[in-house]
Amino acid sequence: MRLRNKPWAKKMIEDHPQIVEPNPEYWKGRWRELFANDHPLHVEIGTGKGQFVTTMAAEYPQRNVIGVEKYDSVIISGVERLINTPLPNIRLLREDVEKIPDFFGKREVDRLYINFTDPWPKNRHEKRRLTHQNFLAKYMQVLKDSGEIHMKTDNQDLFEYSLASFSQHGFKLKNIRLDLHRSEMEENIMTEYEERFVKQGMRIYRLEAYR
Amino acid sequence: MRLRNKPWAKKMIEDHPQIVEPNPEYWKGRWRELFANDHPLHVEIGTGKGQFVTTMAAEYPQRNVIGVEKYDSVIISGVERLINTPLPNIRLLREDVEKIPDFFGKREVDRLYINFTDPWPKNRHEKRRLTHQNFLAKYMQVLKDSGEIHMKTDNQDLFEYSLASFSQHGFKLKNIRLDLHRSEMEENIMTEYEERFVKQGMRIYRLEAYR
Repeated sequence: MRLRNKPWAKKMIEDHPQIVEPNPEYWKGRWRELFANDHPLHVEIGTGKGQFVTTMAAEYPQRNVIGVEKYDSVIISGVERLINTPLPNIRLLREDVEKIPDFFGKREVDRLYINFTDPWPKNRHEKRRLTHQNFLAKYMQVLKDSGEIHMKTDNQDLFEYSLASFSQHGFKLKNIRLDLHRSEMEENIMTEYEERFVKQGMRIYRLEAYR
Repeated sequence: MRLRNKPWAKKMIEDHPQIVEPNPEYWKGRWRELFANDHPLHVEIGTGKGQFVTTMAAEYPQRNVIGVEKYDSVIISGVERLINTPLPNIRLLREDVEKIPDFFGKREVDRLYINFTDPWPKNRHEKRRLTHQNFLAKYMQVLKDSGEIHMKTDNQDLFEYSLASFSQHGFKLKNIRLDLHRSEMEENIMTEYEERFVKQGMRIYRLEAYR
């Protein structure tokens, strides 16, 4: 994603602690208290401009939804959405995915989403891919035993890499789709990227990983 | 594959026991004796007309190669090839894949190939797919600890199914290719189907599974 410098973004985020939770460490292991219910916890990592998480929170009021995004200048699109249309069952975290074991307790998360993440095509950047084994180990910590990771991407190389990585590091695979929009689809919430790629006729790849 | 009735096929097979081994149970656990060397054992199941196994045997004299095919009328194409161009390091078995634990000892096989197998698209035929868990359990028995299964197919649904099935039943995945002929390729021996599909511009899917 191209990053634009938006000096006002930081202030906008700080001004809306009800939308962007400023202290996620505090809620580690007890997000249920924050949401004041025991609904399942669905977390998107690398949430970008937030279309996916805000749509999911609106369509599924029985899910607690968290979107993690590290860039001020990107996350504010989601903040603006939620200022215009407040929703009780969603929070954004302006944080690095690296740190998710600091934000979620062991087996606290019901489902993780990885949507159209940066493919980092060069071998020397392999460790930055969000499906590198170092990240998978972190996801394993926070996921429930019955938890799932749902991944979508347009990037063939990243998808090939991710199928192998999941299978090699403790995950099983199911509901694989090698051309999502030309297959029988169940629930599918589109991201901004996905809408654009589908219009261009590109293939969208999808998988579910579980213990 | 369309099957033509070829009444002379059975006789041709019986007349060439040096090509189509008539008693594979006898060699279970001791194919090395038959080949009189300790080269690795590579087995293709559903070997069809035999282009893949005969090409591999010719290109890799340091491999012992076996092709398993259950139809007389199909396997005879491979028999004809080997009558015309005899090779010491290959045998064909006119047998059902179901029975491979009767033909190979525990951990006897270095590599299994599953190439362009029947996708059996209907749910009620799932058990016939050569990557159904019942088959995977048989492969697991005969494969060495360091053994691998190499699969290629043009069928997207079968490939999606197979990725999941391998990952769910004791196998890890590597070297996945979602468009083999538009990717960096190492060794690739083409089958008859593959040549035809590639000419038509179709995608070929490939995976390697291991313990």
